[in-house]
Amino acid sequence: MEDLKEMGLEKELKERLSTIQPLKKEFFDQAQKRLDQLTKPRGSLGQLEEIAKRYVAIVEEVHPLIRRKIIYTFAGDHGVAAEGVSAYPKDVTPQMVYNFIRGGAAINVLAGHVNAEVVVIDIGVDHVFEPMEGLVGRKVARGTGNIARGPAMSREQALRAISVGWEMADHAKNRKAGLVGTGDMGIGNTTPSSAILAALTGLPVNQVTHRGTGIDDLGLGRKVQTIEKALEINSPNPRDPLDVLAKVGGLEIAGIAGFIIGCAGYRVPVVVDGFISTAGAMIAVALNTRVRDYLFAAHKSVEVGHQFMWEYIGQKPILDLSLRLGEGTGAALAMSVIEASVKVLNEMATFSEAGVSEGKK
Amino acid sequence: MEDLKEMGLEKELKERLSTIQPLKKEFFDQAQKRLDQLTKPRGSLGQLEEIAKRYVAIVEEVHPLIRRKIIYTFAGDHGVAAEGVSAYPKDVTPQMVYNFIRGGAAINVLAGHVNAEVVVIDIGVDHVFEPMEGLVGRKVARGTGNIARGPAMSREQALRAISVGWEMADHAKNRKAGLVGTGDMGIGNTTPSSAILAALTGLPVNQVTHRGTGIDDLGLGRKVQTIEKALEINSPNPRDPLDVLAKVGGLEIAGIAGFIIGCAGYRVPVVVDGFISTAGAMIAVALNTRVRDYLFAAHKSVEVGHQFMWEYIGQKPILDLSLRLGEGTGAALAMSVIEASVKVLNEMATFSEAGVSEGKK
Repeated sequence: MEDLKEMGLEKELKERLSTIQPLKKEFFDQAQKRLDQLTKPRGSLGQLEEIAKRYVAIVEEVHPLIRRKIIYTFAGDHGVAAEGVSAYPKDVTPQMVYNFIRGGAAINVLAGHVNAEVVVIDIGVDHVFEPMEGLVGRKVARGTGNIARGPAMSREQALRAISVGWEMADHAKNRKAGLVGTGDMGIGNTTPSSAILAALTGLPVNQVTHRGTGIDDLGLGRKVQTIEKALEINSPNPRDPLDVLAKVGGLEIAGIAGFIIGCAGYRVPVVVDGFISTAGAMIAVALNTRVRDYLFAAHKSVEVGHQFMWEYIGQKPILDLSLRLGEGTGAALAMSVIEASVKVLNEMATFSEAGVSEGKK
Repeated sequence: MEDLKEMGLEKELKERLSTIQPLKKEFFDQAQKRLDQLTKPRGSLGQLEEIAKRYVAIVEEVHPLIRRKIIYTFAGDHGVAAEGVSAYPKDVTPQMVYNFIRGGAAINVLAGHVNAEVVVIDIGVDHVFEPMEGLVGRKVARGTGNIARGPAMSREQALRAISVGWEMADHAKNRKAGLVGTGDMGIGNTTPSSAILAALTGLPVNQVTHRGTGIDDLGLGRKVQTIEKALEINSPNPRDPLDVLAKVGGLEIAGIAGFIIGCAGYRVPVVVDGFISTAGAMIAVALNTRVRDYLFAAHKSVEVGHQFMWEYIGQKPILDLSLRLGEGTGAALAMSVIEASVKVLNEMATFSEAGVSEGKK
């Protein structure tokens, strides 16, 4: 039965990946033409113009309107927290989920600031939540296994967590979200994120591992050793991204990967948040490189490995504010810049409308 | 009479500068204390936390509320445009002022996006505007003199333009603006901005001069020669910032400098936009270094000299989006990040409120 379910999900994954189309040059050209008619020197809005063009090419509309913005924050626990890789106790994962639901966390404040909704998904928290409005209960397991001693998940669990991400992509599509963001919560989750980065790129662990939410030097050394051990014990196959995800990943990371794949298939632009979200994006891009065109890189985190992730994915971070919080906080701030870019396209006057002389071409 | 007026304005300038107080450590400490009680790892919101602390220290309130945001866009013409230093004809300055008033320019779209108002000031456009709602008519002159042949302004004109900035600071204060931004419009105005930068820092002209809104290689060479000539002919005194402003500056740059000085005196935080606005900020800081604490650096422009300006002022740009438009566009986007920082301070739950365990200190 488990095998049959796994086969069904693998089949759906192949189908979802195969629906992702390359972006069409004609939409970039149409957006460029529009931008060059607007009352500003050509190209003078820099990255805003690049964002606007790609947004147009993703949604295939030259005058897109972003009616709704939603951030999906996936929460899961990590067996590897037992190795002392985090400055916080594991209880903080469910405590923070309650905080999200009550509206007291940074993601609530920043999402509210940019007029985005927050959807919180329990995909693998080691705590039984009572049913609560605002919490989507889709627990695949009560946390992952300790990657320093064995695999994080079975392949089937990884696929099930990915399918939770698809369901959230369906959710975004059904609600006609014009822009979505990813977010994460999970004590210890920079450890599997660094492990995924090292596994997929072959970069040395000590070059891609950092302090997470704030461990000290001793803790950092322990974290590097833990990740090295995890890679040695599990020997994930870098040519099989699902294997990497299952062996050294996390449930929320799998959910984020599935969410990104689903959104790319539906042409819903996705803003990828910080280090953990970008680990999920790496898995998605490793499964199909076309995914990268549908992603906006929210920001460059303090985590030293984050820049390598963006290089792997091939997107330039919009913000660089020394954030290292996750939850979707960077995605929220970047969403506002993306929305501003789209408004420029729609709301600015053209040279002829405004009676302004054009400069030398 | 002119002399008497100049003396009166010089006296008021001294008074305004003398009211600017250093920020108090106790407010940074109080804000830090509050930030460390919030449900997030300490320091994990990076630059947002630095911004929030300084905002608190400027307004001297630990729970500040930004009720109103206003961007002041100063427009003026430049005699040096006759030297062919811009890709655009001089007529574009008044044309763009009309565009601002009608709401079709980039600044209207971006200010609207972040819920900021725009005030447009004719401080020196070479065009007679009919009275229009939304345009503040304070023309000091119909543009500056050609700095390649003589001074931009008399010292008295520079002081009058500065006093227009003070009046706008009064305007902001009276309207209880919690955050204001600077903006500029003036064909040819990267030329005096580079000249001010070279004059105040002694940096070679070719290191601080760039393409403005889009001149070609030939134009860039001409621009460098023009600025070198302007500095040679006028020999501005780097120890007398008013002399630099009058001889190689611009009316809108003087207005921005005065506005910044006025706001610093009133403890109104100012977001400084791009290359031209930052030239104005340099003059203000050169007159009193305490001004720098009241400024937020909106962004790092494409103009090569901009980074030297921020180094001189000693503030780190919030955004880096390859903008080169001016008008206050970068200030508008940065205002949203500053407002987000302040909301974090006010709206997030504390560890004890949310029942979340604190990490290792």
